[in-house]
Amino acid sequence: MIKQQIFEIPTQDGINLHNLNQQVQAVVAQSEIQQGQVLIFSRHTTTAIVVNEDEVRLLDDIQAYLEKLAPPGAQYLHNDLHLRPDIPSDEPMNAHSHLMAMTLGNCETVPVIDGQLALGTYQAIMLVELDGPRDRTVFCQVMGEV
Amino acid sequence: MIKQQIFEIPTQDGINLHNLNQQVQAVVAQSEIQQGQVLIFSRHTTTAIVVNEDEVRLLDDIQAYLEKLAPPGAQYLHNDLHLRPDIPSDEPMNAHSHLMAMTLGNCETVPVIDGQLALGTYQAIMLVELDGPRDRTVFCQVMGEV
Amino acid sequence: MIKQQIFEIPTQDGINLHNLNQQVQAVVAQSEIQQGQVLIFSRHTTTAIVVNEDEVRLLDDIQAYLEKLAPPGAQYLHNDLHLRPDIPSDEPMNAHSHLMAMTLGNCETVPVIDGQLALGTYQAIMLVELDGPRDRTVFCQVMGEV
Repeated sequence: MIKQQIFEIPTQDGINLHNLNQQVQAVVAQSEIQQGQVLIFSRHTTTAIVVNEDEVRLLDDIQAYLEKLAPPGAQYLHNDLHLRPDIPSDEPMNAHSHLMAMTLGNCETVPVIDGQLALGTYQAIMLVELDGPRDRTVFCQVMGEV
Repeated sequence: MIKQQIFEIPTQDGINLHNLNQQVQAVVAQSEIQQGQVLIFSRHTTTAIVVNEDEVRLLDDIQAYLEKLAPPGAQYLHNDLHLRPDIPSDEPMNAHSHLMAMTLGNCETVPVIDGQLALGTYQAIMLVELDGPRDRTVFCQVMGEV
Repeated sequence: MIKQQIFEIPTQDGINLHNLNQQVQAVVAQSEIQQGQVLIFSRHTTTAIVVNEDEVRLLDDIQAYLEKLAPPGAQYLHNDLHLRPDIPSDEPMNAHSHLMAMTLGNCETVPVIDGQLALGTYQAIMLVELDGPRDRTVFCQVMGEV
């Protein structure tokens, strides 16, 4: 059986993380699937989905780490907006956000056991906003046996 | 239901990206699966599969970013070919390509809704060649309900 | 059909990699699933699962690479243990391990064809310990058709 749901996440300025455990668990519960897995897939190119610890000070470390890897103020060809045809008038200069997104990855799959997310003690499914603020959509698909 | 297909992608010198959306969508269409997901899995250790924007100037930024993270000219133990037994005579010095591949990741899973890839507007499934040119094989598996 | 198994991996000090191919293949064989896929999911926030080459000198390159990206000795807010309420008395200073884990990713999905892992010649499924030594648990779930 397959059940899916899309939910919307409003995000804040710059880089920020959003714990999705409750929302994903709710989709699993509604699906009535007991054994299987859930795919969490972001439908954007400047966000990521990660599974890690939701600890407020670590979240600041993540931001600093990503900005060291792909500095927002560096030179990027993608940011030469005048050289790109057919872009929207509000196109942002966000090459660094794309690079961060590729580094962290676009989706995660989490096992479902006895109707529950089989996460470890400190694991949280998180949407990582890398070019906020925006209204983001996350796709959540449960596949398995009732 | 499960359907799979392997396709071959000839790549160019060094780092380059290959948009697979049309080929993956064709596998989904042939499978006749309406609801489910498709796994895109590279069968190599110096390539990656990413979902991000297929914009020509960004692709150059990706190359520069990866070469900053893992410089091709740096010292790597894996490149001391004379210290590795039983390697082919044409073994390349490609430690940097392995490191880039692990950073980007080896596979992606994309939801399928009503027989279509449920990608966001700017999302493209891309094979990232990190040690070309080669003939690469990508595994594509659709799982779901007709 | 869905079959799952958890196995325990004792790890060594610091960063080290553990080839899981034999254990994952054993889970696939026991499941009797012929066509499908297997999800390998780590239940920790300072480990990663990767698919790449299991070559002893490359493994040292991986360690050096990760320690360049997220130096263990750098300043991290997550490591100010006195500012974090309700932590265990043996809480380690491991912000760098979390950052490495997010960079490499928490899970991999590998296709199963004719009852075998459909890995390429040099591909190995590896648990990456980023804050050892510990006793780690890896979740392995096979989904498909017998």
